[in-house]
Amino acid sequence: MKRTMIKNLSQMKGEEIIIKGWADTVRAQGKMAFFDFRDVSGKVQGVVFGKPEVLEVAKKISAEDVVEVKGVVNERNDKTAKEAIEEFKKTGVKDFFVKDVEIEITEIKVLAKSEIPFSLDEDLNLDVYLDNMPFTLKNPKQSAVFKVQAKIIQKFREYLNQNDFTEFMAPKIVGDDAEGGAGVYEVEYFGNKAGLATSPQLYKQIMVGVLERVFTVGQAFRAEKHSTSRHLNEYTSLDFEMGFIDSYKDVMKMHNGLLKYIIDEVQKEMQTELEEYGVEKILAPEEFPVMSLPEAQELLEREFEGVKAVGEPDLEPEHERLLCQYAKENLGSDFIFITHYPVSKRPFYTFKSKDMDGMTDSFDLLFKGVEITSGGQRIHDYDELVQSMKDKGLDPEKFSFYLQAFKTGIPPHGGIGLGVERLTQKILGLDNVKKATLFPREINRIDTLLNK
Amino acid sequence: MKRTMIKNLSQMKGEEIIIKGWADTVRAQGKMAFFDFRDVSGKVQGVVFGKPEVLEVAKKISAEDVVEVKGVVNERNDKTAKEAIEEFKKTGVKDFFVKDVEIEITEIKVLAKSEIPFSLDEDLNLDVYLDNMPFTLKNPKQSAVFKVQAKIIQKFREYLNQNDFTEFMAPKIVGDDAEGGAGVYEVEYFGNKAGLATSPQLYKQIMVGVLERVFTVGQAFRAEKHSTSRHLNEYTSLDFEMGFIDSYKDVMKMHNGLLKYIIDEVQKEMQTELEEYGVEKILAPEEFPVMSLPEAQELLEREFEGVKAVGEPDLEPEHERLLCQYAKENLGSDFIFITHYPVSKRPFYTFKSKDMDGMTDSFDLLFKGVEITSGGQRIHDYDELVQSMKDKGLDPEKFSFYLQAFKTGIPPHGGIGLGVERLTQKILGLDNVKKATLFPREINRIDTLLNK
Repeated sequence: MKRTMIKNLSQMKGEEIIIKGWADTVRAQGKMAFFDFRDVSGKVQGVVFGKPEVLEVAKKISAEDVVEVKGVVNERNDKTAKEAIEEFKKTGVKDFFVKDVEIEITEIKVLAKSEIPFSLDEDLNLDVYLDNMPFTLKNPKQSAVFKVQAKIIQKFREYLNQNDFTEFMAPKIVGDDAEGGAGVYEVEYFGNKAGLATSPQLYKQIMVGVLERVFTVGQAFRAEKHSTSRHLNEYTSLDFEMGFIDSYKDVMKMHNGLLKYIIDEVQKEMQTELEEYGVEKILAPEEFPVMSLPEAQELLEREFEGVKAVGEPDLEPEHERLLCQYAKENLGSDFIFITHYPVSKRPFYTFKSKDMDGMTDSFDLLFKGVEITSGGQRIHDYDELVQSMKDKGLDPEKFSFYLQAFKTGIPPHGGIGLGVERLTQKILGLDNVKKATLFPREINRIDTLLNK
Repeated sequence: MKRTMIKNLSQMKGEEIIIKGWADTVRAQGKMAFFDFRDVSGKVQGVVFGKPEVLEVAKKISAEDVVEVKGVVNERNDKTAKEAIEEFKKTGVKDFFVKDVEIEITEIKVLAKSEIPFSLDEDLNLDVYLDNMPFTLKNPKQSAVFKVQAKIIQKFREYLNQNDFTEFMAPKIVGDDAEGGAGVYEVEYFGNKAGLATSPQLYKQIMVGVLERVFTVGQAFRAEKHSTSRHLNEYTSLDFEMGFIDSYKDVMKMHNGLLKYIIDEVQKEMQTELEEYGVEKILAPEEFPVMSLPEAQELLEREFEGVKAVGEPDLEPEHERLLCQYAKENLGSDFIFITHYPVSKRPFYTFKSKDMDGMTDSFDLLFKGVEITSGGQRIHDYDELVQSMKDKGLDPEKFSFYLQAFKTGIPPHGGIGLGVERLTQKILGLDNVKKATLFPREINRIDTLLNK
């Protein structure tokens, strides 16, 4: 008999089935044994009654044992079942726990024994959660996060493929740190020093000269010593870059469409998971609001008492929070673009604004209080690019490989980079980005705590 | 006016259009100028005639300048055009060079100037190709490789998503080299020694306990000092792992279906690119042939004179080549599974065969002469796994994080790992895997040659 996934049991009333999964909870009482079983698709109740030979096996099962269960699907008529059915009629969202049926068990086999350190339901502090991730992730509330994250990445690719982008793999071992910043992990490379890529930026731009529109999904590495609720030392960067644009506005438009698509699709396809986190409808309009940095700073001072922002080269985290609050309350959007950051605050490859002196044709996208994306138009003229490197105190010699692309014809182009863990965190309202990361690297931790 | 992609020009005869792309070739003769223009979708011919003001601009254009061209689409009636149309009728494959129309240019604008080191058509040795990749990749014959590779990865994901797999990102910075082998790049991690992941294997297995069926696409790093036509120091590994299997045969079946899907779809959707490389129809039957290692060795000695193979613990590269030749000629398949490699030749997590003493329930998949995949069932029993580590001289203490998954219930499971560059190489018949890699890392090279 083929295995039935638990979420499909409601459609199999009266039938004999086999399920496979984990013994989520176990209670044996005299001549009866009660279980909740769990597989990746759902949970269901099971009961052993009046079958001494089955009961004998059942009594030896402990929580989180992996089991194969044969039984008959019976309708449930208790109060919990009825409430669940009412709830479904009202909201259209199926509970992860299938409550309208239960399994009358006729046979049970143990596929793998388990010995757990604590109950999966226990409230854990972050370090205990991380120390025990191979176990704690089994809690459906935790695994839901990574189902949502997989969906975000899938929809990112889907939208870009539909818009004639081609995916490529940007290499992770890179040469000497060309940009000269801190934050690069050093790799021992056959007697030479190499580094781990902090971004796929330079390769993305090279590939615009080859495939015009490209995207890449991969790890980026930042050797930053601070450990906060919003930083990661290794994260997944979603990046696209597009050629033959007229201005940074084409990039914003593509990005707007992309994020609206991701949010709409995730809300449609991941209802159960979002419900689990009590996520309210996310406001993603056709056109996200757009403000230049100076406009945003004036608005902050006008709308929020005591805020000082005008004339500063960047937004403070608190400013980002307030702008998002303003956009949600007044502009019907959980997203807001801020454009035109000063040259001093943006990387050397950023296109300089023709309209606003000292500013760049760049933007950040804010979502639910934080910046999730940086993007903009890039310099495509070889001489201008070399000059911009020099202005930033960088050595063009170190960029000779990258510069070849510009010497041999790169169209006007631009793109974005987006951290998927932070987007996942913000969609689900998690308090720490590490809760949206498989498996977070911190200054003191690679899986387990490091010996110092 | 919106840009028209070159491949669509055949449908726009008589219309005024704008194309954007590169000046692929340039010839100015007296009162005329001839061009081939190229964008990511195709090439087309363009001509300036009888328009002195356009001619003046046209004469200043050099090869690989990025241009915007306005003009009228005219039908071509020359011999080349007629031959191309005949060829299309016969094969159904569109040439990358659109030959049935040409553009009568009315306006031409330079978007970016170019200065090239040599012609894109030039025959290059591998080092020159690699030294100049930001330029040499612009040759459509080179970029075709990465269009095909993107399609392979897309279809890999598509098939697995359809089969209820969830994608996850396996971390690349890992702890001390647990498996104790050579070949791990060392990373300086805040005063500790870390490594770069040689495979996502352990995380895949952990995730089987969480999401049952998972896959991951990402870089794997091998600090191997040899530089050959089939090895890479950084490559892209396509990995899946599935829980609740009955045996390794379930994994082989899934993998067979997956590869047949990829091959069928690539042959359907990438005709122009495969044509470019003269790829013959790839034989990917519903069921790939399967042989155990001892069977394969006997067959080798029986079918090929002078071959010594029986009793050896592994296949030589030459054996793999001969087995593929045999499968193609006698079994109608470019693929062949070889099963049951000895315990001594497989990693500690490999499931030990119940039928063949000293052997494992593992397999390799050979394709066009080389191994492209390793896979098999894995040990899911905690005690057996710990014993297997000890038998291999490994320290279970170092695997404490990973072992948690097995202590808390992992179903019977198995999976595969597949290098996408080698698969791309073999599909297209390239002589070196580096030709199928963006941007290959070698012992002496990260983009440019390293200073030693």
